[in-house]
Amino acid sequence: MERIHGHRAGIAVLAKRPEDVVRIACIRELAEEVEHTLGDYAEQIGIGVLSDREIEKLAHSNQHEGLVLEARARRWATPHELGDLLTKTNGVAVALDRVRNSYNIGAVLRSAAFFGVDAVLLGAPAPHPGLDPNAVRVAEGGVEHLMMARTTDLADTLVRLRSRGVKVFGADGHADSDALRFDYPRPAVLVMGNEREGLGPRVRAQCDAILAIRGSGAVESLNVGVAAGVLIAQLAARR
Amino acid sequence: MERIHGHRAGIAVLAKRPEDVVRIACIRELAEEVEHTLGDYAEQIGIGVLSDREIEKLAHSNQHEGLVLEARARRWATPHELGDLLTKTNGVAVALDRVRNSYNIGAVLRSAAFFGVDAVLLGAPAPHPGLDPNAVRVAEGGVEHLMMARTTDLADTLVRLRSRGVKVFGADGHADSDALRFDYPRPAVLVMGNEREGLGPRVRAQCDAILAIRGSGAVESLNVGVAAGVLIAQLAARR
Repeated sequence: MERIHGHRAGIAVLAKRPEDVVRIACIRELAEEVEHTLGDYAEQIGIGVLSDREIEKLAHSNQHEGLVLEARARRWATPHELGDLLTKTNGVAVALDRVRNSYNIGAVLRSAAFFGVDAVLLGAPAPHPGLDPNAVRVAEGGVEHLMMARTTDLADTLVRLRSRGVKVFGADGHADSDALRFDYPRPAVLVMGNEREGLGPRVRAQCDAILAIRGSGAVESLNVGVAAGVLIAQLAARR
Repeated sequence: MERIHGHRAGIAVLAKRPEDVVRIACIRELAEEVEHTLGDYAEQIGIGVLSDREIEKLAHSNQHEGLVLEARARRWATPHELGDLLTKTNGVAVALDRVRNSYNIGAVLRSAAFFGVDAVLLGAPAPHPGLDPNAVRVAEGGVEHLMMARTTDLADTLVRLRSRGVKVFGADGHADSDALRFDYPRPAVLVMGNEREGLGPRVRAQCDAILAIRGSGAVESLNVGVAAGVLIAQLAARR
């Protein structure tokens, strides 16, 4: 089971996979939108209209935005399925190499969905990288529009994707290539690194090119969520 | 007086305006960097080496990153000075129309400094919009590289800037013009609107063009900090 909170995050689950939803609690102001979104499913699923405070308890967060729900856990695609998708659609994925902050992860997911990226691949050491409820909320429903995959060995997963013709690009502030003037071939994976450490050496070794967003030097780097947005916009514009 | 916390935010103040700094407290691990950054000023300013917990009390935040300092309040440029800068340098400013979340404000400031934007103009109803210590921290020192101005009537300030030949561009998800294919004239102000409401009608009326970042439709919008980053990157690339 998975608990999801947040107005747009929750509504997206109701719209995209109502068959997974087991229980819903929302404030009175959202009840109509919840029912309307569920359509025929509304009769089968219990909708509790509760106070802000009660929803806070269920959501374990005061940033619930009036909606919390319990749903069957989302299905994670295997790296092989990710490879199938990318090669068949000539698509693009964003991979995260140990990005930790759930607000950053959520911002990347939101931007990826906004610009029509096909998939997001979470890479982090075992135990399997999960998707924090805060990241899902910050993504504003974007998660439900993306193929989601995860791996505990991102470098190895990139090896497999490359063997199938997928190009891998890493973002790093100190690289030589200008990310904003780069002509991205496809299918492709764009890899963003950890907030402080950037790309790990094994992941870096699997990149066909390392790209930098050029700055003025006034501050060392962009926030990773912002950097991902700038690069994804670039990728999307060249589609 | 102004209290600033955060590693890079604090170091930037020490580097750019040491004459304003009155008191510093840092953890042992940062003492050498602090002294080195201060150079000759180190002898005049009291540096307290304290525990994490003690710094947390002084900073009123557990996200102090080991450094807190007290400095004379930063100087805010008048709208007239902002106009002087933009017209003389053919420059670019980012204006925020009631953007509220300090993490978003901080991310915009960091991106603006990163891409070499000249100034940021904060617009919010009276009392005067301040700069939350969290926004300063999240900006990672970017604030010290920007001319900072503020106004309680952004629409009126934009009228004055336009009368001096500054072009004003507003960002809005539902606009007709494609922000990523737009040829930005200069000097210019790029206006980002409130997280939920977007641009206010009076501010919108002062825009020479309203620009949209085009999306796939999967999610309604980008995070305002990410959207600003994408647009500023665009502006900077066309400099």
